[in-house]
Amino acid sequence: MQRLFNDPDDIVDETVSGFVRAHADLVSLSSANPRVVLARGCGETDRVGVVTGGGSGHEPAFVGYAGPGMVDAVAVGELFSSPTAKAFLEAMRAADGGAGVAVLYGNYAGDNMNVKMAARMAAKEGIAVRTVVANDDVCSAPAEERAKRRGVAGEILMWKVGGAKAATGASLAEVQATAQKAIDATRSVGVGLAPCTLPANGKPNFDIPAGKMEVGIGHHGEPGTEVADLESADAVADRMLQIVLDDHDLASGDRVCVLLSGLGATPINELYVVYDRIAVGLEDKGISIHRPFVGNYFTSLDMMGVTLTVMKLDDELAALIDAPATAPGMTVQG
Amino acid sequence: MQRLFNDPDDIVDETVSGFVRAHADLVSLSSANPRVVLARGCGETDRVGVVTGGGSGHEPAFVGYAGPGMVDAVAVGELFSSPTAKAFLEAMRAADGGAGVAVLYGNYAGDNMNVKMAARMAAKEGIAVRTVVANDDVCSAPAEERAKRRGVAGEILMWKVGGAKAATGASLAEVQATAQKAIDATRSVGVGLAPCTLPANGKPNFDIPAGKMEVGIGHHGEPGTEVADLESADAVADRMLQIVLDDHDLASGDRVCVLLSGLGATPINELYVVYDRIAVGLEDKGISIHRPFVGNYFTSLDMMGVTLTVMKLDDELAALIDAPATAPGMTVQG
Repeated sequence: MQRLFNDPDDIVDETVSGFVRAHADLVSLSSANPRVVLARGCGETDRVGVVTGGGSGHEPAFVGYAGPGMVDAVAVGELFSSPTAKAFLEAMRAADGGAGVAVLYGNYAGDNMNVKMAARMAAKEGIAVRTVVANDDVCSAPAEERAKRRGVAGEILMWKVGGAKAATGASLAEVQATAQKAIDATRSVGVGLAPCTLPANGKPNFDIPAGKMEVGIGHHGEPGTEVADLESADAVADRMLQIVLDDHDLASGDRVCVLLSGLGATPINELYVVYDRIAVGLEDKGISIHRPFVGNYFTSLDMMGVTLTVMKLDDELAALIDAPATAPGMTVQG
Repeated sequence: MQRLFNDPDDIVDETVSGFVRAHADLVSLSSANPRVVLARGCGETDRVGVVTGGGSGHEPAFVGYAGPGMVDAVAVGELFSSPTAKAFLEAMRAADGGAGVAVLYGNYAGDNMNVKMAARMAAKEGIAVRTVVANDDVCSAPAEERAKRRGVAGEILMWKVGGAKAATGASLAEVQATAQKAIDATRSVGVGLAPCTLPANGKPNFDIPAGKMEVGIGHHGEPGTEVADLESADAVADRMLQIVLDDHDLASGDRVCVLLSGLGATPINELYVVYDRIAVGLEDKGISIHRPFVGNYFTSLDMMGVTLTVMKLDDELAALIDAPATAPGMTVQG
């Protein structure tokens, strides 16, 4: 395994430590829990706090979206594992400035369990908590069972919208409703070309044969809907876009926000090659891209592959996507 | 080869097309030459224009540093190959608003030749051109032959300083002198853990045996000074920092700007693990990190590894590093 780490047991602590040092102008470590990262402005009074959390190994997700205009407090889990309920609770405590906290997270069993447990404890302390569960990964369950779908890179756009809504001084119910609207309007799909390797294990955590690709792959290598022959970048782009469009009520004249992310090892120029085709594909259908994001936004260690996320915008969502945010993983200048 | 491309001959055109689409708020394609990317504000009158260029496959370098406060015009080469003299000339023409252009580029044979040729042609057209050649890669030649050293990720900090200086309305001679001061104050070193593969060829473009690492590797896999046993992240960080310090006149009380870049396939969390150790190492020596950058800033397709760049700051360089810039690859909010 040709990788850069020390004791595998220390990777997350060292990642968080380096992250907080590198972005000390925007974030800090909670003094109460070393697995909670706080944004500048976290806990401001009379503003809803936005909380998230998830496993490590997806950087810049989740910690990288802590910052003014996005997420206030992030609970940090082990590699590919949910944060503890204790870490989620501490994130809720830190983010609450009296107006309550919106916990915007992804649909995984561990996260669901630990967020619920933490929310009950927070409620006992008098903190108002509402949750929104991201379930944007089209291939992880059929449309009629959307509640079973995983949350993937669409979470980033949900945090962007939720953080911007909170910054307007909206109520907790309003922030929750708008974040829910955002994720409801979002679909994602991933294609994996090569697996990733967890340092503690040293072996690829799943298999993709040479010359094949996994369509609909999850962020931890969860199987998709098909193992297909490896295709050209254009064919992969067309296929991803079609999967999203087939599941989405998009029509000519609609506006969307597009986020195309590498999975960790994908060369950045290849992301632009794929994006070029997706942009043309949307244009051809009369769908305009209001704001695109292309880069390594939600990775899976050294996995090779790409994910496409498309959010349908109404005027409110467009304005919230465009609102200023300054997080290590995403800067939007207002 | 598990990668995303179409016809290998089209990769650069498609990369540039996707890049310009993704960042249309900041950049556009030259109408005169499809291998020249222009920043918003390029060619503004009475301001020195900043030009660079280089091979593709290093994204976000070089195109990603086009933007207000950084580079005005970028000439784009084939994968790992210099742009043509024609592309450099067109970039110079576009960037000149009457105050001349500073061409800030890296020390490679092809770039040297083509920049010189283009500068001669530009001079005949009445454009004042001055050049600064980056040579920050410590392991590529001994200190007494610094002029032979390659330019690597230190170029990014040179562009940041040069672009900020040009934005102050400084003269061409002043922009050149300050960019020269910036690169003179900068040292870089890279460590490679696994090679990259050019799509047209389909085979790794050099060899790093399993369990080994190439110390001092160049951005195209140029050999370094040593093939060593693969070490822990901390040992790699210590080794890189020592190489930089041995070549640099840094002392307790000094301030530096640090840029730690992945080479393309390195998981982002591992960059933070390495950065954590480097930050502690500098602190231990009484050297303060004025501003760090950690991420995929200058890559080599899917190479696994990391580069460290350290610039010693005086008050002027610190202020220019902190000045506002908005480029796809780097945003600094003033």
